[in-house]
Amino acid sequence: MKGIFVIADGLGGRPTDLNGNTCLEAAETPYLDALATRGALGLVDPIGPGIRPGSDTAHLSLLGYDPFKVYTGRGVFECLGMGMDVQAGDICFRANFASVESSAEGLRLLDRRAGRISEGQNELEDALRALSVPGAEIEFLASTQHRGALRIRGEGLSRFIGETDPHEVGTVLLASRPTQDVPGADKTADIVNQMTQQSFEILRDLPLNKKRVAAGQLPANVLLVRGAANCPVLPSIESVIGARGAVIAGGALYRGVAEACGMDYIPVQGATGGLDTNIKAKAAAILRTLEDYDYVFCHLKGTDNAGHDKNAADKKAFIERMDSELFKVLIERVDWGRTHLAFTGDHCTPIDYGDHTVDPVPVLFVGPNIPRDPGTTFGERVAGQGGLGRFSGRVLPMLLGYCNWAPKFGS
Amino acid sequence: MKGIFVIADGLGGRPTDLNGNTCLEAAETPYLDALATRGALGLVDPIGPGIRPGSDTAHLSLLGYDPFKVYTGRGVFECLGMGMDVQAGDICFRANFASVESSAEGLRLLDRRAGRISEGQNELEDALRALSVPGAEIEFLASTQHRGALRIRGEGLSRFIGETDPHEVGTVLLASRPTQDVPGADKTADIVNQMTQQSFEILRDLPLNKKRVAAGQLPANVLLVRGAANCPVLPSIESVIGARGAVIAGGALYRGVAEACGMDYIPVQGATGGLDTNIKAKAAAILRTLEDYDYVFCHLKGTDNAGHDKNAADKKAFIERMDSELFKVLIERVDWGRTHLAFTGDHCTPIDYGDHTVDPVPVLFVGPNIPRDPGTTFGERVAGQGGLGRFSGRVLPMLLGYCNWAPKFGS
Repeated sequence: MKGIFVIADGLGGRPTDLNGNTCLEAAETPYLDALATRGALGLVDPIGPGIRPGSDTAHLSLLGYDPFKVYTGRGVFECLGMGMDVQAGDICFRANFASVESSAEGLRLLDRRAGRISEGQNELEDALRALSVPGAEIEFLASTQHRGALRIRGEGLSRFIGETDPHEVGTVLLASRPTQDVPGADKTADIVNQMTQQSFEILRDLPLNKKRVAAGQLPANVLLVRGAANCPVLPSIESVIGARGAVIAGGALYRGVAEACGMDYIPVQGATGGLDTNIKAKAAAILRTLEDYDYVFCHLKGTDNAGHDKNAADKKAFIERMDSELFKVLIERVDWGRTHLAFTGDHCTPIDYGDHTVDPVPVLFVGPNIPRDPGTTFGERVAGQGGLGRFSGRVLPMLLGYCNWAPKFGS
Repeated sequence: MKGIFVIADGLGGRPTDLNGNTCLEAAETPYLDALATRGALGLVDPIGPGIRPGSDTAHLSLLGYDPFKVYTGRGVFECLGMGMDVQAGDICFRANFASVESSAEGLRLLDRRAGRISEGQNELEDALRALSVPGAEIEFLASTQHRGALRIRGEGLSRFIGETDPHEVGTVLLASRPTQDVPGADKTADIVNQMTQQSFEILRDLPLNKKRVAAGQLPANVLLVRGAANCPVLPSIESVIGARGAVIAGGALYRGVAEACGMDYIPVQGATGGLDTNIKAKAAAILRTLEDYDYVFCHLKGTDNAGHDKNAADKKAFIERMDSELFKVLIERVDWGRTHLAFTGDHCTPIDYGDHTVDPVPVLFVGPNIPRDPGTTFGERVAGQGGLGRFSGRVLPMLLGYCNWAPKFGS
């Protein structure tokens, strides 16, 4: 038995999306409807009822972990998702290029995203290889636009330190400070503060920044860090459940979470983590990967991006493109006699609100061991009538259980 | 108000059982259907969504305990279920008669079940009263066929030791070894190893075994142990909820779990823990016991046995016999104005898989305080549409709550 777990980020919506219908309900999805007709629906609270999920915590929960126990922060998944080596004791951060100017009070913030810089990040990344603080080994990798990931390795470090981003233009950068009175926090905050100052000294006079300023653009002349996190100690899904899995995802965060759970990363050409992602290539990669693995986890981000942009048309169109470019392919090409599929979102991102909400998310299971529901469409309201009822997280362990992979607890 | 809690072990199934229907859906059950018509249905995850239950852990959870907190192993319920006295500090095991031969490397396994010995176990049990290891008081009781339970009592023992069963014919018995570096584990493993050797010395020359060998049968000449467990510290259901209960069960494990929760054991003639159990006698015992207790918990095992044997006809027939020999009697004889019934399974044992699975189990509640569903049958799919929704464990506390027994948490 093989398992396919598809998450469309921020899939769920609200009746305010489109005149009483959610984007999912309004979308024309003949292939999802066909899957719903032969499967069963339900509602999943990604973490728990009344808990508003982040994407990282929701993914941990849906993959079978308790985020209240294992989650320390986003930084580590950003680093893992960039392919960085992360070990116990390392402290990881989400790191942004930003624009600052020197002032008597300190580095004054001009823009938190360095004018949403869109090229030349490799030059910045190369220059930042010179970062060197005593007692610390520092690695930074740029990802998309102003985004990047930073890892600090050293003896006796602590994640209990504050961020340097003041979040308000015109104010000076924050000095990182211990947030708890624990060993190593002073030392780590000090390393972060030295690193921040040094990043300014390294970046300010780079040719790229001189060109940007000459062209009337903001310079990318400092690194801001947040989301300090340890490497979580997650027993791999394979060690707990026995099944070997792989992840297909454009966004670094999702790759990072899945790799932290022990999945192998399958790179896919054109998987951008955006609305323009190559869904057909992902569908082909799912089929290919299933030949070598017990299950595949495929993440699509476009639904969430459209939700954050409050763009109902884009969200609906992305769902329709998933239908015709992913689910159509799966219906036609998967061996449904020996495959189970679960499809859901990691949270709702309704159009009107433009951010994650607490609402439960519709979930669909299809496969030979799933009792069929009477319903014939997939959407929020019909899922509330579904035969799977409502449950919290753990969609992947359920999916693998239907594939007969689950370990028995007790005897 | 009186409560009746019936568990049919492994009740749940899958659409693969019988051409798209589960055994429960396919069974002709006019009396269960009548109860469903006047009651409400739902789905219960015996332990939690996506967790594949053992019978012992599932029962603890359905009776209101958190098995992740209280479960240490199967052995203690086997001992309790044999009526043995178990105290804090005792280490309990599931123990099997097996067949071995002496070799230079140690005792070599010939058969893990002593040729499924079916008579003479009392003679073996009597002989094993001679077991004597310094620092330990050892008690063994034989149950059915090759099965038995063993209790070791002494100062400073630990359950963190490995089993002696090599599971593979032709290999030598394992020496029990500590599985964690904790006080007492070395000592306990040593006691188990001495006991194992001694059991061989006691049993090998017994007249029974000489007769077996002469008749071409395998001797029952050693004890294998597994499932090392402590006595769990369970507050009794009576102390927590106030209601006094009794258990009717053929299988030792279920009696053991219920007694550990503080229920009194009601022996019933013909309750075998198998497909041939006397269901009519159990029904009569429920009615009789209800006169003296606030609630009765009745366990039937046949559904699970048939599931493990992958025998759909037997499972369906056992459900139909429960219908006509148990539920018919309850419908006719119970005072439904002042009685609530809950009926479910402790897990699914689908025919195709032949073992416990993660799927949720249908549950039925009937009684004056239960809001009626529109449904008129009892089965997996209709339970997915049921008015009780989907929840995890704790069926007995819910049942007793409908009987107005539940303690208030807070004020």
